[in-house]
Amino acid sequence: MSAQPPHPTLLIPGPIEFDDAVLHSMSHFAESHVGPAFVKTFGESLTLVRKLFQSTSPAAQPFILAGSGTLGWDLVASNLIESGQEALVLHSGYFADSFAACLETYGAKPTQLKAPIGDRPALADIEQALKLADYKIITITHVDTSTGVLSDIKAVAELVRRVSPNTLVVVDGVCSVGCEEIAFDAWDIDVVLTASQKAIGCPPGLSIVMCSGRAMERFKTRQCPPASYYASLANWLPIMQNYEAGKPSYFATPATQLVRALHTALAQIASKPLSERFAAHRAASARVKSAVAELGLHQLAAKPECQANAMTAIRLPEGLTPADVLPILGKKGVVFAGGLHKDIASTYIRFGHMGVSVMDPARNDIDKAIQALKEALAEVTK
Amino acid sequence: MSAQPPHPTLLIPGPIEFDDAVLHSMSHFAESHVGPAFVKTFGESLTLVRKLFQSTSPAAQPFILAGSGTLGWDLVASNLIESGQEALVLHSGYFADSFAACLETYGAKPTQLKAPIGDRPALADIEQALKLADYKIITITHVDTSTGVLSDIKAVAELVRRVSPNTLVVVDGVCSVGCEEIAFDAWDIDVVLTASQKAIGCPPGLSIVMCSGRAMERFKTRQCPPASYYASLANWLPIMQNYEAGKPSYFATPATQLVRALHTALAQIASKPLSERFAAHRAASARVKSAVAELGLHQLAAKPECQANAMTAIRLPEGLTPADVLPILGKKGVVFAGGLHKDIASTYIRFGHMGVSVMDPARNDIDKAIQALKEALAEVTK
Repeated sequence: MSAQPPHPTLLIPGPIEFDDAVLHSMSHFAESHVGPAFVKTFGESLTLVRKLFQSTSPAAQPFILAGSGTLGWDLVASNLIESGQEALVLHSGYFADSFAACLETYGAKPTQLKAPIGDRPALADIEQALKLADYKIITITHVDTSTGVLSDIKAVAELVRRVSPNTLVVVDGVCSVGCEEIAFDAWDIDVVLTASQKAIGCPPGLSIVMCSGRAMERFKTRQCPPASYYASLANWLPIMQNYEAGKPSYFATPATQLVRALHTALAQIASKPLSERFAAHRAASARVKSAVAELGLHQLAAKPECQANAMTAIRLPEGLTPADVLPILGKKGVVFAGGLHKDIASTYIRFGHMGVSVMDPARNDIDKAIQALKEALAEVTK
Repeated sequence: MSAQPPHPTLLIPGPIEFDDAVLHSMSHFAESHVGPAFVKTFGESLTLVRKLFQSTSPAAQPFILAGSGTLGWDLVASNLIESGQEALVLHSGYFADSFAACLETYGAKPTQLKAPIGDRPALADIEQALKLADYKIITITHVDTSTGVLSDIKAVAELVRRVSPNTLVVVDGVCSVGCEEIAFDAWDIDVVLTASQKAIGCPPGLSIVMCSGRAMERFKTRQCPPASYYASLANWLPIMQNYEAGKPSYFATPATQLVRALHTALAQIASKPLSERFAAHRAASARVKSAVAELGLHQLAAKPECQANAMTAIRLPEGLTPADVLPILGKKGVVFAGGLHKDIASTYIRFGHMGVSVMDPARNDIDKAIQALKEALAEVTK
């Protein structure tokens, strides 16, 4: 029995439903951001971020900052690439455009390699593109929240190491971390940036970034100082190192309650093998995708290998818009999201299946949503 | 009777103790950041920020962003001044150094006008300084959290309008908003930046910035695009305008639970005349300062007109350090902060008296803390 009041089940691709214990941590009483209890919680949270990424490399460095997931782009663009340097941006939806805009803001030169909507750039095209310039970083959206397209970050990282070994592999994992597999060390990834409110299962307001030893070395050898102040690794690195070593430290006041909630969420994730968590998300996603196919509907991501386990972007039957369907779903107690990719936003809806809605079968969130979708479509198309 | 578990009373200069209703809002169930309920809450919160600043100017623009208070500096430095332009930074403690560093990061040229520790720059010196360069902005720390020095922002704003009318008056109100008077329109201030976790009484994690019509005009007529992405007003202005107009909008996911808590805190503040709130903080501060004098102790801020109502920075008796006093206070259930100004950090402690600890006399927080301070000093000096 949930401690939360009755409310519509939130199944958008983030924020997602929260576990009672996580929400309870949000209302933790006031405490000093440099007091021993909070220092311990923050330090442990950083260590739990390492576990989340299956990373044991002492050279790797986790960061937890107050801010939206977007702040992770600034952290990359202002610390890991310099003005005038080239970036290759793999485009599998709306969020690559934004990451490219962020890179440009700080003077980098992004080149986008675009796939058709619902697809991702092919490895052969990436290989060709990598040979055309001295790319300091390559960015990949692991799951693009606007299209539900999954990228094969393991294969891309392998390719980069083979053909352009000095290019930093930067993964936007906002909609993937916590539900899609990421073996940070084993796959030799340099940066994963994410946010608290998606598959990690914590309320929004924290930017979480994991950097490899190679990325930290790139930062330490840059010619110019970081191009941002709030997102400067120079400002945050000693803070994160101190907190993880159990020592208080101050640059800007952390979001203490959100960090408490993150700690609870990460500890829950770490309490079971990550492989089980990823398998559960694959199974839930397969159930949703089967149901979508049974309804005669199509996903934006046509190819099975491009289909995220975090979410499903569902094309509506010809002539229907999200405004026709979402209110009916709402009446059935299920909140889905409308389209987000600006070219086709009015033609599809998005169903997020992450976190506690997947991991706690007793909630019955996924089956309830599938049933609601079936009924809603029957009502609008009858 | 509080719904919170027993815990030491947090009387550092932020974060502060929270009202039960505010903490309750922190554990609000998951909701869509673009759903009607949250849009209403966010929009109302923006309108409540206007009220907090006693502003009725439709040209003024409030912003609420996920981030620490520090992010407000980036917002100013990357939007309201351009690379190569001059800024005059009034120095009344540690935080002016940091604001200057932030301005330099984005290419501005800050000149600091420094006062001795515990003092603030004199108006005559500010007037002279303003004549030496074409300062695009002047920054003032309203209450410097490291020294407890209060600045007379009304007088500085008047001076600027008289001798350098095109200079934007930028107030760092992180430790003042909600307890020190600010009449944004009447005093003709251009920017106040603050954070959620001090006298506003909300947990940390939100950056709150109020811009005048003049500041927004400066932004709109700048030559170069904003120098930050996450702190770009170009990205956030349409979002804030849409939310306040009741329309969903997306740039980056807001910290929904923190915004709920901010709404509750701001609504509580707006429920009584602000003049009463400021008077209560003046009275509590006077009580603390009397007690400090009775103990034969001195404040860092020697001149009465330089003493903040938000907090008191107390010089310890010769030979004592915060490490001698803070643990004893802790045993008595009161958490004070150590020194923060790097030159003298080991010689003083800081007592924050803001928000619910002041406004709810039934808590007895201030008198309990004064009593604990008296007892602790008696113990260590006997």
